[in-house]
Amino acid sequence: MTPDPGTALLTDRYELTMVAAALADGTASRRCVFELFARRLPDGRRYGVVAGTGRLLEALERFRFGPEDLELLAGVVDEDTVDWLRDYRFSGDVDGYPEGELYFPGSPILTVSGTFADAVILETLALSIYNHDSAIASAAARMVTAAAGRPLIEMGSRRTHEEAAVACARAAYLAGFGATSNLAARLRHGIPTAGTAAHAWILLHDDERSAFASQVAALGESTTLLVDTFDIRQGIDNAIAAAGTGLGAIRIDSGDLGELARQAREQLDGLGATGTKIVLSGDLDEYAIASLRAEPVDSYGVGTSVVTGSGHPTAGMVYKLVEVDGRPVSKRSTSKESRGGRKAALRRHKPTGTSVEEVVYRADAPPAVGPHDTVLPVPLVRGGKVQAGVDDLEAARDRLRGALVSVPWEGLKLSRGEPAIPTTFLSDQP
Amino acid sequence: MTPDPGTALLTDRYELTMVAAALADGTASRRCVFELFARRLPDGRRYGVVAGTGRLLEALERFRFGPEDLELLAGVVDEDTVDWLRDYRFSGDVDGYPEGELYFPGSPILTVSGTFADAVILETLALSIYNHDSAIASAAARMVTAAAGRPLIEMGSRRTHEEAAVACARAAYLAGFGATSNLAARLRHGIPTAGTAAHAWILLHDDERSAFASQVAALGESTTLLVDTFDIRQGIDNAIAAAGTGLGAIRIDSGDLGELARQAREQLDGLGATGTKIVLSGDLDEYAIASLRAEPVDSYGVGTSVVTGSGHPTAGMVYKLVEVDGRPVSKRSTSKESRGGRKAALRRHKPTGTSVEEVVYRADAPPAVGPHDTVLPVPLVRGGKVQAGVDDLEAARDRLRGALVSVPWEGLKLSRGEPAIPTTFLSDQP
Repeated sequence: MTPDPGTALLTDRYELTMVAAALADGTASRRCVFELFARRLPDGRRYGVVAGTGRLLEALERFRFGPEDLELLAGVVDEDTVDWLRDYRFSGDVDGYPEGELYFPGSPILTVSGTFADAVILETLALSIYNHDSAIASAAARMVTAAAGRPLIEMGSRRTHEEAAVACARAAYLAGFGATSNLAARLRHGIPTAGTAAHAWILLHDDERSAFASQVAALGESTTLLVDTFDIRQGIDNAIAAAGTGLGAIRIDSGDLGELARQAREQLDGLGATGTKIVLSGDLDEYAIASLRAEPVDSYGVGTSVVTGSGHPTAGMVYKLVEVDGRPVSKRSTSKESRGGRKAALRRHKPTGTSVEEVVYRADAPPAVGPHDTVLPVPLVRGGKVQAGVDDLEAARDRLRGALVSVPWEGLKLSRGEPAIPTTFLSDQP
Repeated sequence: MTPDPGTALLTDRYELTMVAAALADGTASRRCVFELFARRLPDGRRYGVVAGTGRLLEALERFRFGPEDLELLAGVVDEDTVDWLRDYRFSGDVDGYPEGELYFPGSPILTVSGTFADAVILETLALSIYNHDSAIASAAARMVTAAAGRPLIEMGSRRTHEEAAVACARAAYLAGFGATSNLAARLRHGIPTAGTAAHAWILLHDDERSAFASQVAALGESTTLLVDTFDIRQGIDNAIAAAGTGLGAIRIDSGDLGELARQAREQLDGLGATGTKIVLSGDLDEYAIASLRAEPVDSYGVGTSVVTGSGHPTAGMVYKLVEVDGRPVSKRSTSKESRGGRKAALRRHKPTGTSVEEVVYRADAPPAVGPHDTVLPVPLVRGGKVQAGVDDLEAARDRLRGALVSVPWEGLKLSRGEPAIPTTFLSDQP
């Protein structure tokens, strides 16, 4: 199973009609800079996590209009444009925050430079990938913080679009989840998979104990037995009877999870299964996970809340033209203004490493970079070529772990609040 | 651009480890019935829309484990199971609510019958598709009601995963949207596309009027000009100066949309452009659309709210084993009980056609079907073969239109409330 061969039609119609009109009036070749950024964080959130970079770079290499696509487009744009699209290869530059980095309001997360036609055509796909993946990673990172070192398994595939599910598994892993239930995510992204059994497994059998015995026989004593189909206390007795005290884990998927975990731990210990772990699942989100911190839980299975961004399923990023032939441009009417001109950013830190400020500046007027400042954008694509190493998922995972350590402690609180650090726009200053 | 060749790995790991254990202990061949249903509607919603049927049936035909998949799975399940998966073709039966039908709590939306192994393996994919597509269609249908006959364009691709975007376009069209911005949705599903231009188009040019003139030259006077980049009043003057009074439409994407629409209509009429239409966009949801009902608006472009299910991005459906070798089964512990036994349903209506009740019954004990009752499930797959016509998107669109007409008027209110009609479970009665 491989991903789609082509990605170029995953695009809004107006991108291509704008290309057609720009080819016709000669503006298609103007040198443009587009910026992808979020005007604000989702309400009450304190940071965002940049995710999707690796997927976008991979999609960029498959951004080709195939014969079937071009046939369709013959009814949408003129013949010259169809010819231009047939040969389309992105040949511009992309700079951006490395994947796994934090972002704040106005952070120039991605900067695409090229001709107008080269760069405008990537708008929809870039936004789809970043808005989705960053929303999931941003929610997942809060869950990882709430779990305080206990492993998390992403198991939400069934609650989201089947292809989005694979991207969710990747984003959650980037954010620090330990594994996913999704097999395609293992194939495509090398993410470890995990799984237990469904209630159907128990109901299929004549009784719970024979279901457990079969599962242990087939999958080994390190497996996880689901003990809440009938009566949890009886279920745990059956589990240890079937597997012995070397049983890997039990899973509880319903009820008052904290209370049940305490009872289960006591019962398991009483049976001598002191090494058998307890996995909890069932409508967990970051708040429920945090509330279980004092309980004897070994890991969490998280589904719906992570794949729906825990209340914020899209990151609300936009892709705006900020420069044409070296001239800053920006919309200025009733609302939704943006800042013109190509920008970059750095993050200032205290000598202790704690971050204090996101500084966004005009790329042609960089401020002095202090010893504790980090310039954030890095080259991702040069002349259409993806740069080495910029799509490394493990590196992104490490990067996020490090970035979260640097956030002021208030910034890691789950409660609603202001962004963890303020954004200063030097470009606004006289 | 064609969809993924295979869909079988878009699956949770535990589906396959359960198959492995069931092949080992002989239960894999037990005759099973699984039911896909929603325990409840999203909070405050009055009906749900069944969507995804056509996509699931198409995915079912591509549900094959290819060589690359099997190589990966050799590390997950034993060799016998890999062999079994290599030959896997679903050979069972599927019955379900036709696509575009309404559903209510407990409606048996999909019923999959076959051996345990045959049927369990479809769980994740079936839920992914139905949970996503039904969430989108259910939100979109409310927007269509709110628009009261004015056309809606789905333009949310950039706010959701790039493949989910194609499914969103399909679900919104099913629900009564007139078009989508997504080109892949046209290729794969034949959905009409529409589009205007972005603010980038205006900013690319030396001034607004030359941007408008180029767009009209390239795309014709029937095009839609985006007039809110600088000053809307000046923008409308420029639009008519560039296109003449035969201009197709203007679009306003920001500001107080109702007030701006009134002013724009007056100005356009004053300029003689009485046939030029007004398209509004910019964070519209069903409530904003309803609030614009009295304004001179001709169509709406809807993005974020439709692709995120307007607050409910997943439908929360589950896939439960209800029958094994003719014996009803169900989980019965702390919570989340379900009803055992294969079920069907009918909808009772008044002689006027207004629906009054969803009746869910054991399939082996059907009630009398009155002259105004509709039995809801239909055969979708028989012996692995998809039945003719059951994946027809236009038919689904017509079906939903008809079903919404039959809902009691309170059921179409946008405000939070109870389901439009109650569900009666005959299976619960003695």
